[in-house]
Amino acid sequence: MDPVRIAAVGVGRWANVLADAYTPSPDVQLVTCYNRSPEKGQAFAQKYGCEYSDSLEALLQRDDIEGVIVTVPNDHHASVIEQVARAGKHVYVEKPIAVDLQEALLIERVVNETGITFMCGHSARRLGGLRKMKEMKNSGALGQVSTVEAVFSNERGLELKPGDWRGNPEKSPGGPLTQLGVHQIDNMQYLMGPVKQVFTMGKPMYTKVSNSTVLQTLVEFEDGTMGYLGTNWACPGSFTFNMYGTTANLFYELDFGWWSNSDVTDEHSSLLKVEFEHLSDDPDNRTLAKGPVQFSRTNHLRDEIEEFAQAIRGEAVVEVGARAAVLNVAVVLAGVRSNQENRPVEIQEILEG
Amino acid sequence: MDPVRIAAVGVGRWANVLADAYTPSPDVQLVTCYNRSPEKGQAFAQKYGCEYSDSLEALLQRDDIEGVIVTVPNDHHASVIEQVARAGKHVYVEKPIAVDLQEALLIERVVNETGITFMCGHSARRLGGLRKMKEMKNSGALGQVSTVEAVFSNERGLELKPGDWRGNPEKSPGGPLTQLGVHQIDNMQYLMGPVKQVFTMGKPMYTKVSNSTVLQTLVEFEDGTMGYLGTNWACPGSFTFNMYGTTANLFYELDFGWWSNSDVTDEHSSLLKVEFEHLSDDPDNRTLAKGPVQFSRTNHLRDEIEEFAQAIRGEAVVEVGARAAVLNVAVVLAGVRSNQENRPVEIQEILEG
Repeated sequence: MDPVRIAAVGVGRWANVLADAYTPSPDVQLVTCYNRSPEKGQAFAQKYGCEYSDSLEALLQRDDIEGVIVTVPNDHHASVIEQVARAGKHVYVEKPIAVDLQEALLIERVVNETGITFMCGHSARRLGGLRKMKEMKNSGALGQVSTVEAVFSNERGLELKPGDWRGNPEKSPGGPLTQLGVHQIDNMQYLMGPVKQVFTMGKPMYTKVSNSTVLQTLVEFEDGTMGYLGTNWACPGSFTFNMYGTTANLFYELDFGWWSNSDVTDEHSSLLKVEFEHLSDDPDNRTLAKGPVQFSRTNHLRDEIEEFAQAIRGEAVVEVGARAAVLNVAVVLAGVRSNQENRPVEIQEILEG
Repeated sequence: MDPVRIAAVGVGRWANVLADAYTPSPDVQLVTCYNRSPEKGQAFAQKYGCEYSDSLEALLQRDDIEGVIVTVPNDHHASVIEQVARAGKHVYVEKPIAVDLQEALLIERVVNETGITFMCGHSARRLGGLRKMKEMKNSGALGQVSTVEAVFSNERGLELKPGDWRGNPEKSPGGPLTQLGVHQIDNMQYLMGPVKQVFTMGKPMYTKVSNSTVLQTLVEFEDGTMGYLGTNWACPGSFTFNMYGTTANLFYELDFGWWSNSDVTDEHSSLLKVEFEHLSDDPDNRTLAKGPVQFSRTNHLRDEIEEFAQAIRGEAVVEVGARAAVLNVAVVLAGVRSNQENRPVEIQEILEG
């Protein structure tokens, strides 16, 4: 495949992590970049051996750029993506697609109107362990699944200072529910299908900011199964995903400290299966066996950028497009509204405005 | 200490498990027993080398009986306990104290009026790992705790037949929330203090009965901390308790298959601590360490019966009396009402009727 010629727009920390993952790929060629602060943009260009464009307009006028990797601040996603898409370039955007439903829906509309290839970077579902869970659920290896439990937590809320954008409920609704939880919300909808209803309890705890930093959420999926999501910004890191079925349970754990090193993320994860070792009519005479499940290693960040490139060439279909990304944000916003109003909130209510 | 002379009333499976635990203790002497079915009662008497009383009245008229171990069906707890207490005998009752708030409050009133020593068998908090968690939380070893997550699940709902009392919402409100969850609710209130508010999502799943068999619950404690409780009757067994603090997290796990063998229950449990191994101003440059926490072994069932005996002698104070047991049931009933009405329910609302 002829490499897809791409540009990076926004060159903060995450742009570097992504470039580390995709620049070794034969499917893409990083041609140029743009950043509001030219110094940082030029440093990025030097680091990755690409050009630097003086303006987004100049970058978008180039005929040789096919796709754009958008990693500008979340609240600028919509305006930048609209500009890029109207210029006929394909778009990859980091998660979340937006933190405001109207902006998320605007992006979806622009994507549909322009017909560009669009991907939102919900890469967690590409982890080897998550892929294996999906395969096992679909094959019936767990019997019938009833519930899941996901946790994604870390200590970031303890260090937030007044004025930090993550401490601002407008820029980061629900704090860790947006920043961390949306990863697990995508995993939940990937594994269990669409969420129907959400109930969230949350508040600021042990922090200097007014935004909620500790939240617990229950979800009911459209198929009637249920889930729990823990998002806590006031504790050492934790990333787990449990699934309970009638014949077996699965327990996935990831040391998220290795998230950015996508070539070895899977090496720092484990998947355990618990099932009956000995079944008997007497419930007191049953024993359980617990053992590791092997799974194929992936490179969650490189894999998704390669899929993006292949989709541009018509050789793949994007797995997480605008609709899936909008629905992930809708679950976050349902949780935020639920927490504000102390009542369960349906996703449909959020989508209707 | 002169052994306390006790009688067993109700000799089902759990009476046997308890007798296995307490008969070797020097603190108690099992003198007699009574059961509605005389055959089972006489078999129990023979098995444990005690007398058999032909009626509860005859048993209660004996001056040499000091305390009674009540393990009759849950919906008979109140009537039996009232009779025993009015006869001036001390009472130990298996959990839950009752499945109906009025009956639980009746028991509390009778206990207060008669002044008997009363204990409800919430023994899970006596497990070595739970004791250690309490000690570590209180000593500040976790920093400031924000959330807990408890799971107690097993496969019993898959086998329930129409007519089984566990499948009856009157006799087992919330199914596993009453039968399994009340253990973890006691652990939660033991570790975190009183629950203020509850939200539960639940339903019958993969079962032939109409009672809910899969439920997920969020709780807010009076001190503002929060918790999750998973109770699922449609999966292989799971018993876990996680606690998240600002400097460390704890993960407790128990193979509940060993619950009834209270001399070795702790041997089938583990407690892990996760904390920072390396701290840095750069969040990307922090690493976590995970390691086992040692704790003293207990015998959760024998220990509580010995405490009951010592309390009768004035040498101990009962840890889980009527009020604590009533509050555990109130949390269950708040969850059931929340699930029925799809709204959060305060414990105060339940206690007010």
